[in-house]
Amino acid sequence: MKLSRYIYIVILNLCINLLSSVCHADDGYRLWLRYDKIDDPAILSQYKNQVRSFFFYDASPTITVAKKELSDGLKGLFGQVVPESNAANNGSLLIRKNQPIPFSHIDFQTYGKEAFTIYTMKVDGKNVTTISANTDIGILYGVFHFLRLMQTRQSIQNLAIISAPKIQNRLLNHWDNLTRHVERGYAGISIFNWHTLPGYIDQRYIDYARANASIGINGTVVTNVNANALILTKEYLEKFKALADVFRPYGIKLYLTARFSAPIELGKLKTADPLDTTVRNWWKEKINEIYQYIPDFGGFLVKANSEGQPGPQNYGRTHADGANMLAEAVAPHGGIVMWRAFVYSNETPEDRVKQAYSEFKPLDGKFEKNVLVQVKNGPLDFQPREPFSPLFGAMPQTPLMMEFQITQEYLGQGTNLVYEAPLFKEVLDADTYQHGPGSTVKKVIDGTLDNYSITGMAGVSNIGNDRNWTGHLFGQSNWYAFGRLAWDHDLSASAIADEWIKESFPNNPKLIATIKQIMLSSRETVVNYMTPLGLHHIMGTGHHYGPAPWVNNAGRADWNPVYYHKADSFGIGFERSSRGSNALEQYAPEVQKQYEDSNTCPEKYLLWFHHVSWNHKMKSGRTLWDELCHSYYAGVDSVRAMQQQWNSLKPFIDEERFRHVQMLLNVQLSEAIWWRNACLLYFQTFSGKPIPAQYEKPDHTLAYYQALRFPYAPGTGN
Amino acid sequence: MKLSRYIYIVILNLCINLLSSVCHADDGYRLWLRYDKIDDPAILSQYKNQVRSFFFYDASPTITVAKKELSDGLKGLFGQVVPESNAANNGSLLIRKNQPIPFSHIDFQTYGKEAFTIYTMKVDGKNVTTISANTDIGILYGVFHFLRLMQTRQSIQNLAIISAPKIQNRLLNHWDNLTRHVERGYAGISIFNWHTLPGYIDQRYIDYARANASIGINGTVVTNVNANALILTKEYLEKFKALADVFRPYGIKLYLTARFSAPIELGKLKTADPLDTTVRNWWKEKINEIYQYIPDFGGFLVKANSEGQPGPQNYGRTHADGANMLAEAVAPHGGIVMWRAFVYSNETPEDRVKQAYSEFKPLDGKFEKNVLVQVKNGPLDFQPREPFSPLFGAMPQTPLMMEFQITQEYLGQGTNLVYEAPLFKEVLDADTYQHGPGSTVKKVIDGTLDNYSITGMAGVSNIGNDRNWTGHLFGQSNWYAFGRLAWDHDLSASAIADEWIKESFPNNPKLIATIKQIMLSSRETVVNYMTPLGLHHIMGTGHHYGPAPWVNNAGRADWNPVYYHKADSFGIGFERSSRGSNALEQYAPEVQKQYEDSNTCPEKYLLWFHHVSWNHKMKSGRTLWDELCHSYYAGVDSVRAMQQQWNSLKPFIDEERFRHVQMLLNVQLSEAIWWRNACLLYFQTFSGKPIPAQYEKPDHTLAYYQALRFPYAPGTGN
Repeated sequence: MKLSRYIYIVILNLCINLLSSVCHADDGYRLWLRYDKIDDPAILSQYKNQVRSFFFYDASPTITVAKKELSDGLKGLFGQVVPESNAANNGSLLIRKNQPIPFSHIDFQTYGKEAFTIYTMKVDGKNVTTISANTDIGILYGVFHFLRLMQTRQSIQNLAIISAPKIQNRLLNHWDNLTRHVERGYAGISIFNWHTLPGYIDQRYIDYARANASIGINGTVVTNVNANALILTKEYLEKFKALADVFRPYGIKLYLTARFSAPIELGKLKTADPLDTTVRNWWKEKINEIYQYIPDFGGFLVKANSEGQPGPQNYGRTHADGANMLAEAVAPHGGIVMWRAFVYSNETPEDRVKQAYSEFKPLDGKFEKNVLVQVKNGPLDFQPREPFSPLFGAMPQTPLMMEFQITQEYLGQGTNLVYEAPLFKEVLDADTYQHGPGSTVKKVIDGTLDNYSITGMAGVSNIGNDRNWTGHLFGQSNWYAFGRLAWDHDLSASAIADEWIKESFPNNPKLIATIKQIMLSSRETVVNYMTPLGLHHIMGTGHHYGPAPWVNNAGRADWNPVYYHKADSFGIGFERSSRGSNALEQYAPEVQKQYEDSNTCPEKYLLWFHHVSWNHKMKSGRTLWDELCHSYYAGVDSVRAMQQQWNSLKPFIDEERFRHVQMLLNVQLSEAIWWRNACLLYFQTFSGKPIPAQYEKPDHTLAYYQALRFPYAPGTGN
Repeated sequence: MKLSRYIYIVILNLCINLLSSVCHADDGYRLWLRYDKIDDPAILSQYKNQVRSFFFYDASPTITVAKKELSDGLKGLFGQVVPESNAANNGSLLIRKNQPIPFSHIDFQTYGKEAFTIYTMKVDGKNVTTISANTDIGILYGVFHFLRLMQTRQSIQNLAIISAPKIQNRLLNHWDNLTRHVERGYAGISIFNWHTLPGYIDQRYIDYARANASIGINGTVVTNVNANALILTKEYLEKFKALADVFRPYGIKLYLTARFSAPIELGKLKTADPLDTTVRNWWKEKINEIYQYIPDFGGFLVKANSEGQPGPQNYGRTHADGANMLAEAVAPHGGIVMWRAFVYSNETPEDRVKQAYSEFKPLDGKFEKNVLVQVKNGPLDFQPREPFSPLFGAMPQTPLMMEFQITQEYLGQGTNLVYEAPLFKEVLDADTYQHGPGSTVKKVIDGTLDNYSITGMAGVSNIGNDRNWTGHLFGQSNWYAFGRLAWDHDLSASAIADEWIKESFPNNPKLIATIKQIMLSSRETVVNYMTPLGLHHIMGTGHHYGPAPWVNNAGRADWNPVYYHKADSFGIGFERSSRGSNALEQYAPEVQKQYEDSNTCPEKYLLWFHHVSWNHKMKSGRTLWDELCHSYYAGVDSVRAMQQQWNSLKPFIDEERFRHVQMLLNVQLSEAIWWRNACLLYFQTFSGKPIPAQYEKPDHTLAYYQALRFPYAPGTGN
């Protein structure tokens, strides 16, 4: 090759190099799909050798999307364009539907429509990689997986991958209002600009679909569970259709929330009784209309008879009556209904955490087969730690789906670094014992325990129009982890963190190890400085920002923090054993046995299940009071440790993201101190005991903390 | 030089080339400060020859900022790093305060603290460029100007520039609430994240300051004129201090809006009477407290006794009493008070457009010398076209400052392309005749007409947290134009457009000419399809989105469109001559003469000043009704023309911004058609005349348009 041409190629590739590595502003917009050039020469060489060209044999909008993703991804990772070629040469990457699994009798068809395979094999002696699937969407997932292998520096030699999602319906739930305000949102406002839809399609809608497809999310509910009937009008159906059209090539179905009283509000009927024929017909016609706009409309998510939302009980009907009415109407179109179990009755004085079970268990088997009951991970409301909901495993004839909260309503909102995968895993791996040992929650929701025909997992989104999508940079890791666990709940929190870090930051071993340590410790840290030892629901009223364990004047008893901690001169905690509310009776006997005795109850749930003396002896030898102090102070110290760890990464991380996290860790530290001081000063008024001398004294009084007001804390408006 | 080193330099510069020209995502975030590499080799060569090094002789935070801007700017524009050097060589750019103007007896000190000079000269036979100023901020302005010369491909040889702003106080007014909702905002929510301030400083605050400094804006009111007393509490003063600290090096002062009833709401006083000593003391102490946090706090903007805001009239006091109380308290600190004249009394049935003059003219000379009265450009409320406010020139003893609206509340909100500089210029160049001919509005507000000791110009901001800051890309041009006109109101709309286009897009002559044509015609276009021939205030209630000329049931008569157009079987328009409300009497006799007679009144103001027969003969020969139809249809056709012109630019513009504008022009077309149809169908019920046959018929009925509802149109919440 001539020297000048050689120089030209060197220059061109150097420039693409520089472009890829330096070019992209690190404002976080690219999420985990940065495809920055691989800087390890040995690995890069392996990859380039293995992938010298690619070819898609199929064609469709989804294949077009997959092709663009692969092309852009390879160009970024390799620093050079990888050409298309259908010749089967060394280094060919051939992508084609319906290929048999090599050297196998496995009928790949049985893996389902989202599964994919990735195999390396020799074809006529040539080293070839293949990606195959039963559908175009499977191809897209395969492409994303293949790119992920390289983003995370894994070997792409000798691949023999068959991957199928363990859960069918993997959804985000947006609590986005038509005003664009996001309930419990801390990342700006809704990314969906309802006013300018359908005419204006924001680039963000497309990047949102890409990001979700890359982690296997295949559905999204774009409207708030506190529903607005207007979304069912033509004006809004046009907007949702425009979104659905953007999402479709990425395998993402659009769902809506159903306002139960819509027949009255929109239809001008006199009732919304689900057994009333005119009501049923109204819904049938309305749903038929929706399917005119969106032929693959996913169905509805419903919050009814909860926190003021209308529902079937307004007419003396059951949740099943309500769900089945909608289910029957969407069934001919292939739609589903997800009916939330987050209910707590106004009238019953029963322990709040017992109420969902009490209300739904009797309805087992009464739902249509295209209905799932959507259950929050714990029986209260997304606290930093809750035991798993007793409903899991207790409704063998009704598909239960999981509802996790990705947005950090109770986990520090927009300012605290909390990696949630450990929380998700704790729930998923919990043993319900409903069919003996091994009856884990994950087996309930993936359908294998009770043979559900339909399965699902939902995550309440933390996405907003902030540049980095999630407000706090590390919020991205929770969106990511949710998707990965919805696909495969056997992945570990550590492995998922490893992926996300490698995809989001330079691949420096010290950086990876340090960030992973920060992430994996962060959940326990926030538990320690907010609600240790099983404490729960002691946050500020309304906005849920900051501590307020003293509040006792909320509209209902079970909205008061004092209801939950029950601190008195004797001790603290909620007796939920047989000696108290007996919330434990809703669990299998093996579980009851674990928690029944306050002396053997795992300490992280102690004050959830028991009202315990301030002098109760903990395993550490400390009294409960001293253990409480120890936990709160350790939590704060852990934040300081996170700060030091983060600061050590300054040489390795771009300035913008480094400063972003550094500033937020400062804010987190002051909030952790606030939680610690306010809670201990308040509980101290009951324990009468001193905060042990070795700890730094609170720098404000209890009265100071009790007087704090935040009328404009985010996430609470309409 | 060795070949390898040569190759290295070539590669490095090529890469920076590629970086600069390709690298930057064109999502609009960089505004007009893109500094993309100059692609004209001849011009680039001239620049590089003229600027081979630079040196700042002074040091301060502002100089640091100026240095970074110059360094980044040169690197981008030249595609190579320009080194620092204090040697006076050929190509030296020397930047130093307090240099005398070459070959001149001009005492540069007299130009003031924001002025700057840029001179090319020979020093010891070497070709040198100098930038000088009396202060660091002047240096910063000089640097921005120098960079602008190059961004706009102007010659930088033989420079002899002295530039000083014609107006002292050049402010943005943010109508941002503490909820982050922006009143009349169409670009997302407030860029100011109050909840995470002061701990978290968003990069955007810094880029906001840079952008404003680049166009000479030196002040910003960060809170809504519909004020919230809470902003005066310690919790919020800490947040504002953090912002002020960010803005300070950029020469931008922070101002706040004063809630007149704060002494009651915060101070728990029984009154807010401005003549009450305890009230005056409360404000003095509060203001002293503010200056503890922000030593160069600019002062207050006040909306009082208007649209429900409390004020001095609640206590039988005058606007002057209220303003002077605050003025006296900020005066020792160098602060100012800007008191808005946007008032219209509940009780007086007087023609709405007369009320501000009626209320403020009698107060001339009664204000303290650090008070400006802030007057909207027209006597109503930012309509697509209004005559200038009669207050201009009518208060020779009181500094009046201009209030323009940059956000497009009445100009198509977030979806319409409207370049506002023609509107600004129309007002600024209007002749009040208050001291004979040439008594232009611009001479009023720059203080030369009546010798004001203090001058100002404010623009209601169109900025939000959308990626491109202003929602519609072309909204940026209005922010830009406002700043440029505040500095120099003699600049033409065309010259400013030329600058902005060259700074924002590739420098292609066809592109520049086409975009300029689009921009310069856009204001008249929107007048035509919304409110032609002097029509005004016929928009939808509350949200002001879309047409609703039929509305007659608003809370006050002068909130009703019907009040303003007064359409009846005879004709249409508001008689404001001596035969009607005589709003004309508030103007100088020469002005009255121009508008008094409906046969000679300039047609663009015809229906503002006259109630005219549908058969009135226009200059074109058409009847008024036919002229109305002609205008509305021409407006819509102009939008179609804009679309064609924009589409022709596809080869020249990055895909993202091209599609962005293309999609919005589609939306604009449908909105223009909506305005045209709704207004003509409605007015037709009075005229009884047909829409001339040559025009496309409306595709909906009047009833259809009257039934449209937009409960979630943006910019109206709290």
